[in-house]
Amino acid sequence: MSEQSVTAQSEDFSRWYNEIVYRADLAAPSPVRGCVIIKPYGYEIWEGIKAGLDRRFKATGHQNAYFPLFIPESYIRREAQHVEGFSPELAVVTHAGGKELEEPLVVRPTSETVIGEAFSDWIQSYRDLPLLINQWANVVRWELRTRPFLRTAEFLWQEGHTAHATHDEAERETLQMLDIYADFAVNDAAIPVIKGEKSKMERFAGALRTYTIEAMMRDRRALQSGTSHNLGQNFAKAFDIRYLAESNNQEYCWTTSWGLSTRMVGAVVMTHGDDKGLRLPPKLAPYQVVIVPIFKDDTQRGAVMDAVERLRGQLDDAGVRVHIDNRDGQSPGFKFNDWEMRGVPLRMEIGPRDVEKNNAVLARRDIPGRKGKQFVSQDGIVAVTRSLLADIQCSLLEDARAFRDAHIADAASYDELRMVIAEGDWARVFWDGDDEDELAVKDETGATIRCFPFDQPGEPGQCVFSGRNTERVALFAKAY
Amino acid sequence: MSEQSVTAQSEDFSRWYNEIVYRADLAAPSPVRGCVIIKPYGYEIWEGIKAGLDRRFKATGHQNAYFPLFIPESYIRREAQHVEGFSPELAVVTHAGGKELEEPLVVRPTSETVIGEAFSDWIQSYRDLPLLINQWANVVRWELRTRPFLRTAEFLWQEGHTAHATHDEAERETLQMLDIYADFAVNDAAIPVIKGEKSKMERFAGALRTYTIEAMMRDRRALQSGTSHNLGQNFAKAFDIRYLAESNNQEYCWTTSWGLSTRMVGAVVMTHGDDKGLRLPPKLAPYQVVIVPIFKDDTQRGAVMDAVERLRGQLDDAGVRVHIDNRDGQSPGFKFNDWEMRGVPLRMEIGPRDVEKNNAVLARRDIPGRKGKQFVSQDGIVAVTRSLLADIQCSLLEDARAFRDAHIADAASYDELRMVIAEGDWARVFWDGDDEDELAVKDETGATIRCFPFDQPGEPGQCVFSGRNTERVALFAKAY
Repeated sequence: MSEQSVTAQSEDFSRWYNEIVYRADLAAPSPVRGCVIIKPYGYEIWEGIKAGLDRRFKATGHQNAYFPLFIPESYIRREAQHVEGFSPELAVVTHAGGKELEEPLVVRPTSETVIGEAFSDWIQSYRDLPLLINQWANVVRWELRTRPFLRTAEFLWQEGHTAHATHDEAERETLQMLDIYADFAVNDAAIPVIKGEKSKMERFAGALRTYTIEAMMRDRRALQSGTSHNLGQNFAKAFDIRYLAESNNQEYCWTTSWGLSTRMVGAVVMTHGDDKGLRLPPKLAPYQVVIVPIFKDDTQRGAVMDAVERLRGQLDDAGVRVHIDNRDGQSPGFKFNDWEMRGVPLRMEIGPRDVEKNNAVLARRDIPGRKGKQFVSQDGIVAVTRSLLADIQCSLLEDARAFRDAHIADAASYDELRMVIAEGDWARVFWDGDDEDELAVKDETGATIRCFPFDQPGEPGQCVFSGRNTERVALFAKAY
Repeated sequence: MSEQSVTAQSEDFSRWYNEIVYRADLAAPSPVRGCVIIKPYGYEIWEGIKAGLDRRFKATGHQNAYFPLFIPESYIRREAQHVEGFSPELAVVTHAGGKELEEPLVVRPTSETVIGEAFSDWIQSYRDLPLLINQWANVVRWELRTRPFLRTAEFLWQEGHTAHATHDEAERETLQMLDIYADFAVNDAAIPVIKGEKSKMERFAGALRTYTIEAMMRDRRALQSGTSHNLGQNFAKAFDIRYLAESNNQEYCWTTSWGLSTRMVGAVVMTHGDDKGLRLPPKLAPYQVVIVPIFKDDTQRGAVMDAVERLRGQLDDAGVRVHIDNRDGQSPGFKFNDWEMRGVPLRMEIGPRDVEKNNAVLARRDIPGRKGKQFVSQDGIVAVTRSLLADIQCSLLEDARAFRDAHIADAASYDELRMVIAEGDWARVFWDGDDEDELAVKDETGATIRCFPFDQPGEPGQCVFSGRNTERVALFAKAY
């Protein structure tokens, strides 16, 4: 798998990404245009993401459900902005069971419409509110240019859909879910995302407000990693989602939706990876520790494997995800490279001399070479391993945060903005432009407004484009 | 929800089923023909099924992956029996991204073909074998007559796909997975399934042998609840899945596939449910215990809720899934009925007098009325609850087993077979008929061969139809 060296990030980041994805065995090409196969190693990372999010959703009162894959075409058309936003990307079933369908069925690009219709049935009175539903599902958007995990015709995601009695409650939910995404990204994926609001142009089709978590990849491009939408009453009006209020009036609900997808796997790769391969945060790593036994003959093998099995048992019992690489016919050196490519946080080496001395060697993936290696006693291996894993989790986050902060610059003028973007960095600028201004910046620099970050300076300044005074700064960057 | 009484099983089982599914809030009708919405309470049962199976799959070395939803139409055609079996049920995407596709894409009815193509890439040598993959996914089969969970146009399932070096290894895998299904069904779902082999007519399209677990529902119809297929080399030849053997020859692999779906939710409903609603086995119940607090005024409320919260905390910490029903404006009687409808295994009632006496009332769902009720001390509530839950799990299984055994009869002649089937029971008969004979029995009695059970008499007998001597008995029954 990792016999040949990888393209360096600095040479061609995009090629580096594709090579890593395939050589670390995260995904494989598929025969269907724009789709990839998520291989077991990539899928296990996704399972970690799912578990981390699902736990947080349930702890805040959300329940999972499942809605149909197919949506009658007429539903998509009911919310005007929504149909405009999604029409070019739809895949359509026209035939089924050997016959042409009377009404074509759209393969869901997202489920606001079909869930809106269901909510209008389920919600009668204020007692039914809030309704807090999440769905884990596949969705299809027929994209022209696709890349594994980042943008594929079919992808996996969760989509939350909630209904509330008031605007403020819906807004609180929208922000709560953004916080959950950020908490997951920072604490589980070790990605220091920036929370903020999208500009009008980048809003979800049909939303009142869209919030986002934005992450900086190692090529300094931005990756939108999760979004949370306050849909106002747009979908409630399109799908007649009403409730009987305590006042005895019929009122429209206020709805939200929020989604995070397999794109997060790409974010993990591009936030932490280096020229040797993946670097996985321990909380999401399918294997947190890989043990490579080292021996020359059967006598050595016996003694080494006894120790290896004993240590594996201890780590296993402690809930550490541990794997023994006992592949025959592969040298330790090959195995070291292979697990570096796959980004396993800790490698444990055990040879005959280690057994004699009751030692093991632990090598950290995040600190290259000798500096990251240490001899440890086999006694108390669980405590040492746990502490190192916690340390690696922090250190990946700190690395990424330092990198990000070094590459966001305040720009006081449009010239400065251009320079910062031309450098490849993110520009933080006072902004009060309209859609056209935003498009003009995009045309000239390739950068878009990633968000108006929640973290604002708190004092007014001058918009770098319109010259108007404003309270708000925006982050501009080139993005995936 | 459960204000009105339900149709009795004895009156109209099919109507009973539909009423229970909707009134226990397992599912809701959807706007898409043949599809239902799986509501949170139903989806949680499915999550329990997934967790129980996924754990077993991983413990036997299987890994999850994800393959595309869409399959090029030409793939489906590559295995002759396969295309014949599935063609009438396919849903086809002909347009995407605003254009007509050059090759239509089939929405997967099952993934042998697309996974076969991937396996032919992934497998090079005997070192790559066995390859043990599972996928959790949605599939679509355009069925004409649909029923929630039992048969829907779209359903959720897992499909395992494995490749092996030899026939015998593939056969062992096929049987191992059937054992896993049976172990799950018996121990988690409390459904006493019968393991056996399908007749040639009922085999999976393209398989060498199909094994099944068959369950008896409360109307005595059979429900095929999970199948495991030895595909021989049929798909390996159609998709060129070959490996370099140690002998240095190129050999075709031997492949298997096995699947279990949301149909299992229907099996749980129809195996355990009674005229008051669901009865859920504790291991799959979203809530194992529901606490109904009883009070008349705020003083009582305070004392009762203190005790309720304390007990909830203790049960929660012990890993018991517990829910407090604190809905305002609903009487305890209403709540009792509602939770009976939803099949919660244990109901705990706590009123002011219970608080005074440090007691609680526990009512078992599986034993109706006073007989199932007991006063227990609040001290040691965890131990009592656990023991009752374990007892209910066993008692549901024993109930179902006794029911099943009472309704399977040996039939020594075709006349006897007809009588047994006419009674609504299952007939166990010596069978050596061919496809035509099997069809003749079906036409006359409505019964099909559910399986040749693994549990065989071990002595020869005379086929009830052809009169030939044979070693094998088959189970005939009417089925879903």
